[in-house]
Amino acid sequence: MRVGVLGGGQLARMMALAGHPLGLEFAFLDPSADACAFPLGHALHGAYDDPAKLDELADFADVVTFEFENVPAAVTDRLSARVPVYPPGGALAVAQDRFVEKTLFRELGIDTADFRAVDSEVDLAAAAEELGYPLVLKTRSEGYDGKGQQVVRSAEQLASAWQAIGGRPLIAEAFVSFTREVSVVAVRSRDGEVHCYPLAENQHEDGILTVSRSQPADLIEGAAQDAAQRLLTHLEYVGVLALELFDCGGELQANEFAPRVHNSGHWTIEGATVSQFENHLRAVCGLPLGATDARGRVAMLNLIGQLPPVAPLLSLPDVHVHLYGKRARPGRKIGHLTTWAEDEATLADRFAEVCTHVGREPASVG
Amino acid sequence: MRVGVLGGGQLARMMALAGHPLGLEFAFLDPSADACAFPLGHALHGAYDDPAKLDELADFADVVTFEFENVPAAVTDRLSARVPVYPPGGALAVAQDRFVEKTLFRELGIDTADFRAVDSEVDLAAAAEELGYPLVLKTRSEGYDGKGQQVVRSAEQLASAWQAIGGRPLIAEAFVSFTREVSVVAVRSRDGEVHCYPLAENQHEDGILTVSRSQPADLIEGAAQDAAQRLLTHLEYVGVLALELFDCGGELQANEFAPRVHNSGHWTIEGATVSQFENHLRAVCGLPLGATDARGRVAMLNLIGQLPPVAPLLSLPDVHVHLYGKRARPGRKIGHLTTWAEDEATLADRFAEVCTHVGREPASVG
Repeated sequence: MRVGVLGGGQLARMMALAGHPLGLEFAFLDPSADACAFPLGHALHGAYDDPAKLDELADFADVVTFEFENVPAAVTDRLSARVPVYPPGGALAVAQDRFVEKTLFRELGIDTADFRAVDSEVDLAAAAEELGYPLVLKTRSEGYDGKGQQVVRSAEQLASAWQAIGGRPLIAEAFVSFTREVSVVAVRSRDGEVHCYPLAENQHEDGILTVSRSQPADLIEGAAQDAAQRLLTHLEYVGVLALELFDCGGELQANEFAPRVHNSGHWTIEGATVSQFENHLRAVCGLPLGATDARGRVAMLNLIGQLPPVAPLLSLPDVHVHLYGKRARPGRKIGHLTTWAEDEATLADRFAEVCTHVGREPASVG
Repeated sequence: MRVGVLGGGQLARMMALAGHPLGLEFAFLDPSADACAFPLGHALHGAYDDPAKLDELADFADVVTFEFENVPAAVTDRLSARVPVYPPGGALAVAQDRFVEKTLFRELGIDTADFRAVDSEVDLAAAAEELGYPLVLKTRSEGYDGKGQQVVRSAEQLASAWQAIGGRPLIAEAFVSFTREVSVVAVRSRDGEVHCYPLAENQHEDGILTVSRSQPADLIEGAAQDAAQRLLTHLEYVGVLALELFDCGGELQANEFAPRVHNSGHWTIEGATVSQFENHLRAVCGLPLGATDARGRVAMLNLIGQLPPVAPLLSLPDVHVHLYGKRARPGRKIGHLTTWAEDEATLADRFAEVCTHVGREPASVG
């Protein structure tokens, strides 16, 4: 079976590494000439909305999927006319608009921070009145890894926040005081079966995910998985989806979802029976889903901006290195490490050692 | 780092799948235009002894290794003059001659069946006199998966056996009455560290490996690993090597070794901390070796000749499908399945179910 992928970054690359053993073949459409998935399939170098390239992708593929979800509806429409496309365009459309997304969460009984649509400075002032300070102002579409966001701490900062990102549809959200950030990676098959991975606990720095840990049997796992299940079912979703939530002292508030395999699910390669990458492919190809249960405990550390010396890391027990074949650049995700252990205490020790090796404060990951 | 591989079959393919996450790049030299590793690296289509192609491989690679060991010494010599080649040519030369190989086993204190070099019908008659019947007559070089072998059960069969494979250097071996076939996959680093995987118990049909099971803590594991350790150290080996032995009621007799990753080590992908493929690459690239300890129990079943329906297999618990992207052909290895379980009893149940699905008698897999 032939899988066409919109995007040729590390997510597509890890999909291909999981998919070749299933006998799948891949083509990737990516605007970068050196997209890191290209060595693992047919390389289609071009813009995501290049009609000729999209037709080439459709010619190749038995099914098309995404590693990059911010594509115009015209792209999914063009592809869908030729070949099955999963996840469905409707799910992408929801994920592309934070206001629509949070409205849907509420409709599904999934709690969120209070929020208002903001299309003008007048709207913003009114939203601030209702939500109080601090509030978070975000673009409704695009923006990732913390880009396109402004924290407004007082009325004096309203104007500058508007200046920074105003002039397009925005959303104002009440500031969430959370205990921790968690996510649920879940997968839904073409025939509606949903499997959820155990909870992951995530840490961000400068808006970028740095650490994810698998938290099987976490106290709030059931509630988080239940929310994910409702979301996937409502969207008639096919494939892997990641739902990011804030844990506010045991109460969950949904933040956003990503309609694709997700950085907070990388731990599943070593830490679950079947990885998020393989399960995504099984889903979009119409194959039976694999088990999502955890094996042991895993902590995942992103390698961002520069590569630490790899050899010493490989000599540590149960450390697995995943490099993406990307050139190093400040702020760029170029790989990740997973540390595996049978139990939580051993994992903490091993992960502390990994952090020391990469020059990171072990205290900050505890 | 860039790895050149002689051969582009499934072993090279699984090497590449293990090596990309380490940031390695691959080129494969293979005489088949549709070699199944080609989609995972640079394809060099040509004969193994094509000087121009070998130079292209050397131009590309920081290090060269093999998935196919039956290459003339001139090939390794040509490559070695340009780029480091592991495992060393000396180990390949030993593995290419069954008489030299068994002689080395004896020198290293590793027991074997009694054997004689046979270069003529007169030699054969003399060997039969000394070894008795049945005896096994084999070509000294080449021959794999049971090809190039004759079992001689009486003096009347000597002439026909000679006719079938005589006229080139042969070896006659006393028939070994074994309890079971086992193998040890071991890896040696550039600086001489040796790690052994737990024992695998193997079943052959028509001379082709069909089933391998990991047997951690097997009674004869220590003796088998000790033999492997002596062999790798003597050969100043670098990379993965598989030593095949007969278990004759608790006494071990070495049969042969393969100077490469091996079918009886495929279980390590799911069943060991670091797989044979990754450890082979770590060794030849001068990186620290990874742990070879088992995780749970695994049974591996080769898919030979034709592909069973894959979807039902994927719905079984803890079954992992590895397809090689090769066209089906009678007798051809086109994939393998691994069944994983925490304990032996669960594994037996699950594996029986797998066998039922692929239309194989569960009774025949023990």
